[in-house]
Amino acid sequence: MARIVQKYGGTSVGDVERIKKVAERIKAFRDQGNQLVIVVSARAGVTNELIAKAKLLCAQPSEREMDQLLAIGEQETIALTAMALHGVGVDAVSYTGAQAGIFTDAVHTKAKIKMINAAPVEKDLDAGRVVIVAGFQGINDDGGVTTLGRGGSDLTAIALAAAVKADKCEIYTDVDGVYTADPRVVKDARKLDEISYDEMLELASSGSKVMQSRSVEFAKKYGVIFEVRSSFNQNPGTIVKEEVAYMEKVVVRGVAVDKDQAKVIVSNLPDKPGSAARVFRALADANVMVDMIVQNVGRGGVANLTFTVPQTDQVKAQRALEPVLAAMGGGQVAIHEQIAKLSVVGVGMKTHSGVAATLFQALAAANINIEMISTSEIKISVIVEQERADEAARVAHAAFHLDQL
Amino acid sequence: MARIVQKYGGTSVGDVERIKKVAERIKAFRDQGNQLVIVVSARAGVTNELIAKAKLLCAQPSEREMDQLLAIGEQETIALTAMALHGVGVDAVSYTGAQAGIFTDAVHTKAKIKMINAAPVEKDLDAGRVVIVAGFQGINDDGGVTTLGRGGSDLTAIALAAAVKADKCEIYTDVDGVYTADPRVVKDARKLDEISYDEMLELASSGSKVMQSRSVEFAKKYGVIFEVRSSFNQNPGTIVKEEVAYMEKVVVRGVAVDKDQAKVIVSNLPDKPGSAARVFRALADANVMVDMIVQNVGRGGVANLTFTVPQTDQVKAQRALEPVLAAMGGGQVAIHEQIAKLSVVGVGMKTHSGVAATLFQALAAANINIEMISTSEIKISVIVEQERADEAARVAHAAFHLDQL
Repeated sequence: MARIVQKYGGTSVGDVERIKKVAERIKAFRDQGNQLVIVVSARAGVTNELIAKAKLLCAQPSEREMDQLLAIGEQETIALTAMALHGVGVDAVSYTGAQAGIFTDAVHTKAKIKMINAAPVEKDLDAGRVVIVAGFQGINDDGGVTTLGRGGSDLTAIALAAAVKADKCEIYTDVDGVYTADPRVVKDARKLDEISYDEMLELASSGSKVMQSRSVEFAKKYGVIFEVRSSFNQNPGTIVKEEVAYMEKVVVRGVAVDKDQAKVIVSNLPDKPGSAARVFRALADANVMVDMIVQNVGRGGVANLTFTVPQTDQVKAQRALEPVLAAMGGGQVAIHEQIAKLSVVGVGMKTHSGVAATLFQALAAANINIEMISTSEIKISVIVEQERADEAARVAHAAFHLDQL
Repeated sequence: MARIVQKYGGTSVGDVERIKKVAERIKAFRDQGNQLVIVVSARAGVTNELIAKAKLLCAQPSEREMDQLLAIGEQETIALTAMALHGVGVDAVSYTGAQAGIFTDAVHTKAKIKMINAAPVEKDLDAGRVVIVAGFQGINDDGGVTTLGRGGSDLTAIALAAAVKADKCEIYTDVDGVYTADPRVVKDARKLDEISYDEMLELASSGSKVMQSRSVEFAKKYGVIFEVRSSFNQNPGTIVKEEVAYMEKVVVRGVAVDKDQAKVIVSNLPDKPGSAARVFRALADANVMVDMIVQNVGRGGVANLTFTVPQTDQVKAQRALEPVLAAMGGGQVAIHEQIAKLSVVGVGMKTHSGVAATLFQALAAANINIEMISTSEIKISVIVEQERADEAARVAHAAFHLDQL
């Protein structure tokens, strides 16, 4: 008997028929004698429907009321999932975030989990019930409903796994696991059996859509081993855990492409101490997330600053920069959207040299120009022309022999 | 400045456009300087949609999970109503039943309110906010969501009015108020300006669909004066309060028709002591609501028992009676659906004689046969043929001059 936390996403509980399938899958695990905590998302689409209604009533809906509204999505799926389990003869009980004792800070729409009081959930587990918990939501000290922001249901599952000391945590999604590259782009991409938290984090921040970084960070912090797998088949997925010895032999574990970045070029900036600081302070104050940064000093005492921001932040970035440049007496802003970030990730990089050289050489051989470079301990990222990004991914995948076990 | 509780039903908040209209109405009251607590129902139709989904997953859904599911209906409308108020510049905050401190017993789907902790609501009122509260729902001692059953949102409004010591409680609905008879049946039916709790209770139990008895009983118990009025116009409605002196002069206040009853005839019952008791014990054990009862002793030591039950209970009644009659060694059951109950109601009846005579005479003059009679202190009910019920209502309305002020 094991204690298992399973999370099913919005597609897996998208309608009554799919909820029935999820119930049958849960029953099979239950029949093996396992204790089960099931975290479910809102059905796919419901969040957008509710946001659309809200926008018709108020141009800028209050975040408290938005949380109150959006939380009904998971409240619907927990009750329906519990009923589906009753329908197949499994004892089950549903919990909202508040009922499951998931206490958060007061920051609506992107709350952080402060504490979980898992006693009620554990009592039901010990009584032999399957416990269904609403993902993505919690309660603040005032009794207000909060939501955890993007990827919140994964976070609920991982935090609950830590709180109830689960033996396993399984994140069910619509992909089979974590791949060496996006299989839609790189035909011979392989599913990884295991990956370390750090590699998963670098992949997440490099555009791999499997999971949000914060859930992986939480899992790493609390040592929660989890498996990413598909709810539509029985295939084993990818297990995410702390780095293990044999991984050292593998230099590069995966390739990721992020096409949602824009490149911002600030040119003719007066080359004085503090210029760059003022630029990035203004961007930080406007909550613009800056990723890669390159600075070159040009001729005639002016500098060029180049950096990348999410495309969704580019208008904010432009607005934040204009008054600063005016105040400094110089500088123009240009934004290019037709770029992509290609990253190669692997903990083995720490102890192996030559990874950068291999990557740059492979891209050069394919005549793909590198516009920017940034590196971390276990990642190298380059900015390339967007229309050549998929080709670049295939070239990198092949250069590091990721198609071979 | 007054403290007002207003309740808007499912039709009034049926879609985004209607919610906007409700927000404008609330704003007008707010602009007059009033403190407002707004109770809203789920939008019309959502409850049936959710029940339909539940039934697809489980033949007999658990009542706890059903409450968890149905509560999302009001949680949607409170958030949207708060947003609509923000949209017109009114400070507002939404509360679920749990957040509003509405504590109930543990009986899911028909919970009773035990206690209201109105401190958070009053704090927001004093801070100048409009407080939107989810009708129909509360929380039990275990933190489980409960619902109050039919007419639950009216009850929430009246209980909150008592808890926050409101100056007024307004129940907005799709009719203009309480009428002397159903205006669709009796053309010259008049809207009543005032009516006593007792009269309202008798009308409610006599088939008038304006409100459920339990809300009126609660209002009577706590002395909450409330007004039933339309959310679609500005007309004053009907004020429901304790009996007042001038009402004594008015003998009959209204006429109600109930076509949802069935007449059950148990014939050839052995006329022994305890026979009737055994029949009604069996019906009570089967949770069949029995209304009017008539017993006549027939020839040859057998009795006939006639009584009325809600049509929805007639199958249950038949099943409950068969084994009892078999055990007593006699009796047949016949059920007639084509009947209706006509009631005339008025507190003035207590001190005036001749009301029954006037009613019977008027029906006789119209050649309408009376099948059964029952009376209370302030009501006389008769069973008539269903197809003549509307005519009987018009005859009674005219006989008591209800068209005249």
